[in-house]
Amino acid sequence: MPETLSDIGEFGLIDRIDLLLQSAGAVLPEGSLGIGDDCAAFQPRPGYELLVTCDAMVEGRHYLPRFISPMHLGRRAMSLNISDIGAMGGVPRYALVSLGLRPDTPVQDVEAIYLGFIAELNPFDAVIVGGNLTRSEGANFIDITLIGEIEAGRSVRRATARPGNAILVTGYPGQAAAGLQILLAGSSGTDLEEHPLVQAYNRPSHRAREGRAVALSGLATAMIDISDGLIGDLGHICDESGVGARVIQENLPVSPAMQEAAGRLEKDPLHWVLMDSDDYELIITCAVEHVEAIRSLISRLNPVPVSLIGEIIPPSGGAGDIQLISGNGIPRTVSRSGWNHFAH
Amino acid sequence: MPETLSDIGEFGLIDRIDLLLQSAGAVLPEGSLGIGDDCAAFQPRPGYELLVTCDAMVEGRHYLPRFISPMHLGRRAMSLNISDIGAMGGVPRYALVSLGLRPDTPVQDVEAIYLGFIAELNPFDAVIVGGNLTRSEGANFIDITLIGEIEAGRSVRRATARPGNAILVTGYPGQAAAGLQILLAGSSGTDLEEHPLVQAYNRPSHRAREGRAVALSGLATAMIDISDGLIGDLGHICDESGVGARVIQENLPVSPAMQEAAGRLEKDPLHWVLMDSDDYELIITCAVEHVEAIRSLISRLNPVPVSLIGEIIPPSGGAGDIQLISGNGIPRTVSRSGWNHFAH
Repeated sequence: MPETLSDIGEFGLIDRIDLLLQSAGAVLPEGSLGIGDDCAAFQPRPGYELLVTCDAMVEGRHYLPRFISPMHLGRRAMSLNISDIGAMGGVPRYALVSLGLRPDTPVQDVEAIYLGFIAELNPFDAVIVGGNLTRSEGANFIDITLIGEIEAGRSVRRATARPGNAILVTGYPGQAAAGLQILLAGSSGTDLEEHPLVQAYNRPSHRAREGRAVALSGLATAMIDISDGLIGDLGHICDESGVGARVIQENLPVSPAMQEAAGRLEKDPLHWVLMDSDDYELIITCAVEHVEAIRSLISRLNPVPVSLIGEIIPPSGGAGDIQLISGNGIPRTVSRSGWNHFAH
Repeated sequence: MPETLSDIGEFGLIDRIDLLLQSAGAVLPEGSLGIGDDCAAFQPRPGYELLVTCDAMVEGRHYLPRFISPMHLGRRAMSLNISDIGAMGGVPRYALVSLGLRPDTPVQDVEAIYLGFIAELNPFDAVIVGGNLTRSEGANFIDITLIGEIEAGRSVRRATARPGNAILVTGYPGQAAAGLQILLAGSSGTDLEEHPLVQAYNRPSHRAREGRAVALSGLATAMIDISDGLIGDLGHICDESGVGARVIQENLPVSPAMQEAAGRLEKDPLHWVLMDSDDYELIITCAVEHVEAIRSLISRLNPVPVSLIGEIIPPSGGAGDIQLISGNGIPRTVSRSGWNHFAH
């Protein structure tokens, strides 16, 4: 029987995590406090703005334990927060981790989750400075607050896209949704672990370095990471900026793996590209003359494709509306509430 | 039938909360972003350290909905985070709120929870700058990250208590535990709403202003708020400072309401005072010659009693041990793991 939280108790778990953080070389910056005090404390650097985000993952809602190892769960939970910091151009610095755990949770699973956090934070020299452990009576949950920093005035926001701007997207949004479909259709998660789409779901890559390079270039007018699907997050840009968007269907990136899986599962790959999917790719808007410069600076960091999928347009009837132009040239309106309301 | 979250959806709820925050006059500081972006962003003030804390309340574990209204639940969840900031001497500034909610949760309950947050934040001109709403499959939860600030170098920590220091405690720790007992023993929570001990449980007062005054005076050697009970939190000071403590039983504050309730419920009021209780009172250690000055500066803010309950001693066999001296003068050792292991 593996040791569980009910065997070692809350204080026992705190001691174990403290040890793990120390042995993982999570050295706190001078003058800062670890999880032994009421609050974490740190001295912000002059000339920098702070960025703060928080995102939760709830068992059964955002992940299914039979499909993802605790280590990858930790990585994914931290990645999605790193992605938010990166989508504004910032660098992650300090994390606070709140876990709700059933008493029957194995201690080694909790340690593996923390190792996942550390694996994602280490490349940025970012550290866990605090948090909270609580007993959960139902589903386990992971709630992370991540604090990042960016040179004052350089963050890229959602509310500043302008009509005529090009719309770029990195990578292949929808791969995570396709991976989930493959897992749900399969007999066992472990057989499918190495499938590229399953990896896209379980081990998504954030684009924090790419987002930072774009922000520091000053060439983007707006930027967001994709966590509500391409239409959902492009919709956030449109809503906040008071504009619309025209998306060219044939320009939407579909990876060969998505084509193959869509054929086999008899799905429309466009559904995956456009609708709910947690890929942590970036949507970037910019003046048309800056498209190639942005592509070039991203390609220097990462061979990920950067697709020009459409343009920002003035608001039409409903502000925030997104038009999808298919092969026949006739625009169809896709609302933020999505594909479900869209006659395909 | 009240409107539920499943009626209006996640984006509908975000819009409603946005409206509520605006109408409550939650004006964001200039240059900061609200919950419409990937991250909240703010410019820290030069010369200040930032303090960050996060604490969660899980339904069934930290509260029972039949005993507490949504508004008071919101107040209590925010108070316990404000208490952490105050126990280091800081002022709350920015909150991020993460809610996990079942789809059948009434919208008006969520709005009432937010009004509770705002009621606690407003006196500090602190604001909600971000957060996250997620569907919960089981218990609802509230997880708050609160960011505060303090003049650099002025925060009071746990690790700096010294042998010979006096140990002070504000108010009546244990009143919240007694209030919970009364609720659990009673037939209906609503009949008992006005009972002073039930109020101590449902509407605890933080001591953030008092904590700040103590910190700015420079007279305290260590400070902590009580959220794990008096012994638990005094134990944190002892562990982090590498010292022990001697507590004089007859100096422990027991309010008349606790005496009355203990008699009626046939309980030992000392159990309430010492063990698990979420009161958000302060434990303060200081040099003996500063006891009266600290009492006096707290009394200028609040008529709450400040009891001298014992002294910090060198570590004995087990560092962090707490000795309880009763009327017969014979010390008994109370371990951090508490009263359960203590032969009474």
